[in-house]
Amino acid sequence: MATMDDIAKRLGISKATVSKALSGATDVSESTRKSVLEIAVELGYSRPARSGGKRLCIFIENMAYTAPEDFGWDIIMGFRKMAEPAGACIEVVPLTVQTQKQIPYDQYMLSNGYAGAFFLGLTLNDPWMQDFRSSRTPAVLYDNHVRSNPYTAYLGIDNDEGMDLAVARLKALGHRKIGYLSGALGSYIQQVRYRAFFRSLRQSGFPDQPSLVGNSYYTSECLENHLPRLLRQGVTAIICSHDLLAHSVLIHCMEVGIRVPDQLSIIGFDDLPLCSYTIPPLASIRQNRPQLGRSAYYALASLLDGIPISTLLLHAELIERASIGPAPESSPNKG
Amino acid sequence: MATMDDIAKRLGISKATVSKALSGATDVSESTRKSVLEIAVELGYSRPARSGGKRLCIFIENMAYTAPEDFGWDIIMGFRKMAEPAGACIEVVPLTVQTQKQIPYDQYMLSNGYAGAFFLGLTLNDPWMQDFRSSRTPAVLYDNHVRSNPYTAYLGIDNDEGMDLAVARLKALGHRKIGYLSGALGSYIQQVRYRAFFRSLRQSGFPDQPSLVGNSYYTSECLENHLPRLLRQGVTAIICSHDLLAHSVLIHCMEVGIRVPDQLSIIGFDDLPLCSYTIPPLASIRQNRPQLGRSAYYALASLLDGIPISTLLLHAELIERASIGPAPESSPNKG
Repeated sequence: MATMDDIAKRLGISKATVSKALSGATDVSESTRKSVLEIAVELGYSRPARSGGKRLCIFIENMAYTAPEDFGWDIIMGFRKMAEPAGACIEVVPLTVQTQKQIPYDQYMLSNGYAGAFFLGLTLNDPWMQDFRSSRTPAVLYDNHVRSNPYTAYLGIDNDEGMDLAVARLKALGHRKIGYLSGALGSYIQQVRYRAFFRSLRQSGFPDQPSLVGNSYYTSECLENHLPRLLRQGVTAIICSHDLLAHSVLIHCMEVGIRVPDQLSIIGFDDLPLCSYTIPPLASIRQNRPQLGRSAYYALASLLDGIPISTLLLHAELIERASIGPAPESSPNKG
Repeated sequence: MATMDDIAKRLGISKATVSKALSGATDVSESTRKSVLEIAVELGYSRPARSGGKRLCIFIENMAYTAPEDFGWDIIMGFRKMAEPAGACIEVVPLTVQTQKQIPYDQYMLSNGYAGAFFLGLTLNDPWMQDFRSSRTPAVLYDNHVRSNPYTAYLGIDNDEGMDLAVARLKALGHRKIGYLSGALGSYIQQVRYRAFFRSLRQSGFPDQPSLVGNSYYTSECLENHLPRLLRQGVTAIICSHDLLAHSVLIHCMEVGIRVPDQLSIIGFDDLPLCSYTIPPLASIRQNRPQLGRSAYYALASLLDGIPISTLLLHAELIERASIGPAPESSPNKG
């Protein structure tokens, strides 16, 4: 393990200056501070834990979390409920692309004194996703998977299982042609679910025609182009890649006079709190958010403890609600 | 939660008889005991934990574990090191197909007073693999994956990552045609690695020709038929599905005069203790056995605590040893 002396020696400066740079003192120039951080990361220096336990950080973006009905709320609560009794100090930090561009992940963590982080809502385009290929500060990524870096772990639900549950239930209800609507494929998890849909179709003995799927960044395109196209093919049930999209489909169906579930069954993914209050209530594949938060803390504590966790998935669960029902005689736009 | 009264009522017998049947008393007929167990499992009855903590069971078959150099030893040690300080009582039970045929998994666990189990070495043909589709006693399966049962979890290493590491290292050494030899595909993990090989080839930009693979239950067939066939195609490196097979390939190469690694590079999977002592020492994808054991206990404790863990994978690691080297000008049986 590198020491402050090692850093000082490498840069030809005093240990006192290194110490000041690492503690964020103001009487050190910005360029010196930057050099110290770079060399500290390069040498694998890590700060000794302060009294009061390790400082951990939850980075969050693209996800609401400030109210109990928000998706992120229960995840963060679950994490804190495990972490704080274990003596860790948790800070929740909204993450921006700008921050990621300004400073590499390892340097950010070192300069802020965080031992490890839990990430919520990262997309594949986030700058730090590149850093995770070789970063050395433990990071648990919700719904993102970085291979071959023993300091990162992927946490999520088993989306293959979730898709299997959705397709199997619809099959049991008599549906023979099932469609899939998806948001943009710019996130790891949307790609995973997209592939899972075809896998589940094959597993259930249905043909896995690419024409049964529609995806777009724009909800309007899903509703106005892809949905009618799926219905023309005789689809009687649609699985949506996330609940907000499924909710939009429900509203759209009501507007254009398609009765759910009599004419069309709809299943979402995530089981957001709103699923109980849509009309009709939305069946969905649940992500158990409090347990995801607890598991995230376990994964992070394990990485900090040298247990090289790669992947930690929870079982998916189908929550049945009134948006699914027996298959109609024919598709609403076909019969 | 069902009680002994519920079982007694359902069968029309006394609670005292139920209690005797569940505790294995000898003055209850075998048929009564069987009925009590069946109904107890059906109703979801579970025994109250005895003083001294939960009784947990490690079932093992097809795997040596009684000496420190055995593959199972460190896994079991890792498990015990986590479980026993937490107050659990651990028993290691060699498993037979006969036992599995005699009594369903849930009934076995209930009648023996075990709260949960960790399984090592199960194959896809083991009778209890069917039970796991609907069993309700928590079970962590090393290298076996049962979908859609929230009471089972899959524990292992990330074999996709391991295969990526092996292929990427061989590519960096200049190898352009890599072969794969595998044991029989009757176990889940052999199937996973088989698929992973083709995935890694594609990922590395190599063509994923089925002819680059040979698999057989019989090592002799791999050595006498598949190995020469791969060499005739110009293969300069071979990844083996497990170290014992790789070891056989090393010995065979020495016998027939193929120099490893000058003419042919070999990588195994598992990093068995023997890898350091083969001639030459065998490069291998490590399964971190002590950490697998520790993680298995975490997964089982989580299932017992209602956290529905589906999958827990550890990072793979390539251990470089002298059996791999720069690619030769041509394949030993081609140039």
